Amino acid sequence: MTRQELVDQIFAKRSFLCIGLDADMKKIPQHLHAADDPIFEFNRAIIDSTASYCVAYKPNLAFYEAHGVAGWVAFERTVQYLRENYPHHFIIADAKRGDIGNTSTMYARTFFEQMDLDALTVAPYMGEDSVTPFLAYEDKWVILLALTSNRGSHDFQLIEDGNGTPLYEHVIRRSQQWGTKENLMYVVGATQGPMFEKIRAIAPEHFLLVPGVGAQGGSLEEVCRYGMTEDCGLLVNSSRAIIYADDTPQFAMIAAQRAREVQQQMAVLLDNLQKHR
Amino acid sequence: MTRQELVDQIFAKRSFLCIGLDADMKKIPQHLHAADDPIFEFNRAIIDSTASYCVAYKPNLAFYEAHGVAGWVAFERTVQYLRENYPHHFIIADAKRGDIGNTSTMYARTFFEQMDLDALTVAPYMGEDSVTPFLAYEDKWVILLALTSNRGSHDFQLIEDGNGTPLYEHVIRRSQQWGTKENLMYVVGATQGPMFEKIRAIAPEHFLLVPGVGAQGGSLEEVCRYGMTEDCGLLVNSSRAIIYADDTPQFAMIAAQRAREVQQQMAVLLDNLQKHR
Repeated sequence: MTRQELVDQIFAKRSFLCIGLDADMKKIPQHLHAADDPIFEFNRAIIDSTASYCVAYKPNLAFYEAHGVAGWVAFERTVQYLRENYPHHFIIADAKRGDIGNTSTMYARTFFEQMDLDALTVAPYMGEDSVTPFLAYEDKWVILLALTSNRGSHDFQLIEDGNGTPLYEHVIRRSQQWGTKENLMYVVGATQGPMFEKIRAIAPEHFLLVPGVGAQGGSLEEVCRYGMTEDCGLLVNSSRAIIYADDTPQFAMIAAQRAREVQQQMAVLLDNLQKHR
Repeated sequence: MTRQELVDQIFAKRSFLCIGLDADMKKIPQHLHAADDPIFEFNRAIIDSTASYCVAYKPNLAFYEAHGVAGWVAFERTVQYLRENYPHHFIIADAKRGDIGNTSTMYARTFFEQMDLDALTVAPYMGEDSVTPFLAYEDKWVILLALTSNRGSHDFQLIEDGNGTPLYEHVIRRSQQWGTKENLMYVVGATQGPMFEKIRAIAPEHFLLVPGVGAQGGSLEEVCRYGMTEDCGLLVNSSRAIIYADDTPQFAMIAAQRAREVQQQMAVLLDNLQKHR
């Protein structure tokens, strides 16, 4: 998917919501456990009920790999189901990969050729040749970890060099030599609040994928105040707060209500943006 | 496997060789392509022929995931085959994972509970809570990326703070608050040569997993001169130079010859070490 297509989807649906498909057997409603492929059945129900309110889905590979082969089957079926039924949704594999060049090339083939995903999250630690194999695909995206939402983000990402430039800023600056706003986004956690202003100073137009709204405590308004650009420039992810809002047979309907609530907040924020354009 | 058991294996077999099982269909001998599970058949032949010469095997997950579900089946079969037939070999999943705490917990379950691997490579970028879930398992290991063997390692790992301390050194120092030499190793590329001396100053006893000897150009002697400790403290990995040394039906025999050549170099290095103990 191109950047323009993504922006068009956001304004057409008045939503920049990404829903995290983190299928955890411990949280999936009990009545689904008897199904042949409970994770896929859960995902399908969540997707069908929430697709109108979001522009992107983000399965986190860890939750699938935790189930070994059965998990990979569920992951592939989920991606295929999305591609066939919701071709305008942006699909992100939250895999946080990153390895030496020839290995990253293998991952790129898996996710972009075999599975036709739109984007992959990548860890920057190993540098340029671990990232660029993913950037070789037209209309496919790398979403590079910059400033994450977890507590441990402070351990290394904020270490400053002799000029006071933190590591995450090095990541954002350097990587702009490898990719463009058309194929590169950054992960910036919602819990990082005012940091968004500093990030917009060095990446004024790149899309940011923002986890941490909801369960992890980040505020949607704060993220938008500092992080929104004139064509939105944000994909805000919510996983647990939507998909596990309920564990009865009505779970999909309740998830849809939650997604719609977020979408309505987003519509107001987008309307305000357009008024000021 | 405990640290002492690993050290005992190294001195008993006079080898600190780790063989990377990077099963690439483009390089696997043609006559195996007709098998039901060519990757597993290739791995089994390589393992049976080389097991006497190495103490560890390291399948790189990327090469398996590149084949989707079939790849995961081959990976699981390979690990199971090793566990059943070679219980004294140390098995490393080269996965370079690292995610927020609850996701790392999922990965830890996959690799340490379901699959009973000994160790997992982990990327440090997300900090403490992305690493510690893996350290909660007795006799299981985290192998943390510190200074990698690829060109891109220079992009971020060598960035120095105001005191001249590079990022990789922060990673090694900080992580010693999370784990010990009994459950934590570091990846240090063989291509980093004299850097081993600096690393031994801050991690005098931790095992180092060293990729990059062979295909990537690192020297075994140089690595040992600077990196070896009195109980060895090194696992040196070789993948392509051994497993793809030949692509005829004799491939396993040729791989064994290559592994034996490396083992014999290692035996000399270990003998020298013991003379000086």
